[in-house]
Amino acid sequence: MPYVNIKVTREGGPDGTGPSDDHKAQLIAGVTDLLARVLNKNPETTVVVIDEVDLPNWGIGGLAVPEFREKT
Amino acid sequence: MPYVNIKVTREGGPDGTGPSDDHKAQLIAGVTDLLARVLNKNPETTVVVIDEVDLPNWGIGGLAVPEFREKT
Amino acid sequence: MPYVNIKVTREGGPDGTGPSDDHKAQLIAGVTDLLARVLNKNPETTVVVIDEVDLPNWGIGGLAVPEFREKT
Amino acid sequence: MPYVNIKVTREGGPDGTGPSDDHKAQLIAGVTDLLARVLNKNPETTVVVIDEVDLPNWGIGGLAVPEFREKT
Amino acid sequence: MPYVNIKVTREGGPDGTGPSDDHKAQLIAGVTDLLARVLNKNPETTVVVIDEVDLPNWGIGGLAVPEFREKT
Amino acid sequence: MPYVNIKVTREGGPDGTGPSDDHKAQLIAGVTDLLARVLNKNPETTVVVIDEVDLPNWGIGGLAVPEFREKT
Repeated sequence: MPYVNIKVTREGGPDGTGPSDDHKAQLIAGVTDLLARVLNKNPETTVVVIDEVDLPNWGIGGLAVPEFREKT
Repeated sequence: MPYVNIKVTREGGPDGTGPSDDHKAQLIAGVTDLLARVLNKNPETTVVVIDEVDLPNWGIGGLAVPEFREKT
Repeated sequence: MPYVNIKVTREGGPDGTGPSDDHKAQLIAGVTDLLARVLNKNPETTVVVIDEVDLPNWGIGGLAVPEFREKT
Repeated sequence: MPYVNIKVTREGGPDGTGPSDDHKAQLIAGVTDLLARVLNKNPETTVVVIDEVDLPNWGIGGLAVPEFREKT
Repeated sequence: MPYVNIKVTREGGPDGTGPSDDHKAQLIAGVTDLLARVLNKNPETTVVVIDEVDLPNWGIGGLAVPEFREKT
Repeated sequence: MPYVNIKVTREGGPDGTGPSDDHKAQLIAGVTDLLARVLNKNPETTVVVIDEVDLPNWGIGGLAVPEFREKT
């Protein structure tokens, strides 16, 4: 019954607009398998939700990502 | 002052692209009423946020929803 | 497969330390039933997580709850 | 290493479709600075994520925002 | 810069009160590695937060976990 | 009506067990004021929730915080 929320920036992937469906499938499979191995959790009731966040909406170092990358 | 976050897959509804505004209104009214009845919470400061998640971004049973439905 | 997160302040209930287990059971049953009725969601895969938050950790009107209640 | 999630309704800003990138930059800078001043947290590892929520998806007083505003 | 939130029930582990610190370390390492492999994310800025939820606060199938397990 | 969730590690403060109530009050006041100044949001309906996370439950750089600090 674990619930996992993965937030990543909306970038990369085949057309630069975020992870591909295959990437997402790998994340879902990988984290479900991890919870089964480490905590013996049942994959059938492991919920994974992936949120993709636009770059201006993600801040690090006091800056939004686009500006952060310009300056670092 | 409760805060309720409801995450559902972006499907169903009148045009298959997710709950209708009426559906969302029913969820908001229903959960606000539930908190008032059970915990005597003030509806005026009960916040409800509904997130709609694309099917490839929602995992169950180690698979993204589209693939999960193909296999089950 | 909905996921619902309910955040309430850690108060009330039989001994003033937060909702009783029965209260929580009513919230879980109520929100699961609401999602089944409104969106035809399967109760068996509806996940509900209730978070109880200490009063000094909850802010409204720019004040933590204890101070907010003193002033209003 | 703080993580801050700011949820606001998708409105306002230059074209009424939500906060401008400059608004978001001010929120990111402001909350990062606040955590540095109050808790001496390192801005370099302070993560801020801003979620913009459609009005029908945000409930207050048992109503979705559009209806809430009509009635109040 | 990914942010991952893992919510699990507060059970299991060496004394039945939830995952051990070693379990948590394995989850943190595993999910950070997964994001590096699949999306080439930098481990140095990958944040993982694990929440442990009391059984009466976790609902599945319309029931709190303790009752759900009695009935299934 | 903004909702802000601030997650910090459970450390520091007067007795090393996390931010003091005064620290939390400053965070609540500061972020509420920030949203009022930048987005003209009404403080009266701005909700702030502060979560304090145990060090072993917070991961950065693929390690739980205690181990991360030993190694860096």
